Amino acid sequence: MKIQTTVLTTLALVAGLAVTTVSFAQFAKTEDAIKYRQSALTVMGTHFGRLAGMARGAIPYDAAKAQESARIAATVGHLPWEGFVANSFAAPAKVKGDIGANMADFKALQEKAEAELDKLPGAAGNLDSLKAQVGATGGACKNCHDKYRQTN
Amino acid sequence: MKIQTTVLTTLALVAGLAVTTVSFAQFAKTEDAIKYRQSALTVMGTHFGRLAGMARGAIPYDAAKAQESARIAATVGHLPWEGFVANSFAAPAKVKGDIGANMADFKALQEKAEAELDKLPGAAGNLDSLKAQVGATGGACKNCHDKYRQTN
Repeated sequence: MKIQTTVLTTLALVAGLAVTTVSFAQFAKTEDAIKYRQSALTVMGTHFGRLAGMARGAIPYDAAKAQESARIAATVGHLPWEGFVANSFAAPAKVKGDIGANMADFKALQEKAEAELDKLPGAAGNLDSLKAQVGATGGACKNCHDKYRQTN
Repeated sequence: MKIQTTVLTTLALVAGLAVTTVSFAQFAKTEDAIKYRQSALTVMGTHFGRLAGMARGAIPYDAAKAQESARIAATVGHLPWEGFVANSFAAPAKVKGDIGANMADFKALQEKAEAELDKLPGAAGNLDSLKAQVGATGGACKNCHDKYRQTN
């Protein structure tokens, strides 16, 4: 048992993972929560950006690629939110306003965005339906960004 | 059509996405590819870290949480690799050695890691099988990190 723990600890160290006991929190440090949510939003945004590019004609429409990006955007779109933990809204967070004091409003906007992201895979197989759904999903993202995202 | 394009462009701007024409490349800029792969690795590593924490007893084992993190680690574990594009191995990349000149070797290690990540969901329902698979998956990550990851 001891050997196995040592091996796993070594692997975790090599993998660059925090080896401190995380106790029962999802994130050991506030910075980890911020980095996690920003990373998930980057992955999601990359794939949503490809769909938006196809929708506006900047990227040639390809049904298979659109469906793949839609699937990834929808899947990863459920992840960022657990990173919005208490006391994680000051720098280096890129937050406007006080999400902590408006969590119910934030959560409603988040859930609307998740619901619209979930509709992307069903819409991506056809350029017209993709355009419509990119508009609806982008609008749901924008509703939250307008209130809570620091623009720079 | 023009109006729709304008709306989509505005949405993309609001969402913080690059509005420059991406033409046919997956990433508009090398930095975008680096940020994307680092973000995907952060999301994947966060969930693998939770599994490793359960495996070594630092986090209480919970089958549902383990299966959820295993599913996310396996899914997101397929994403980083397209970000390892040509000429993306200098700073701010955290790369050791020359991945570009050893792409076949890198790809073999990557595919082995993906295969071991894919085994996590099937193993996560039981602590003993999770421990074994965390060891195997972590070992596959380590094989690549040892050769190609800048440790600092």
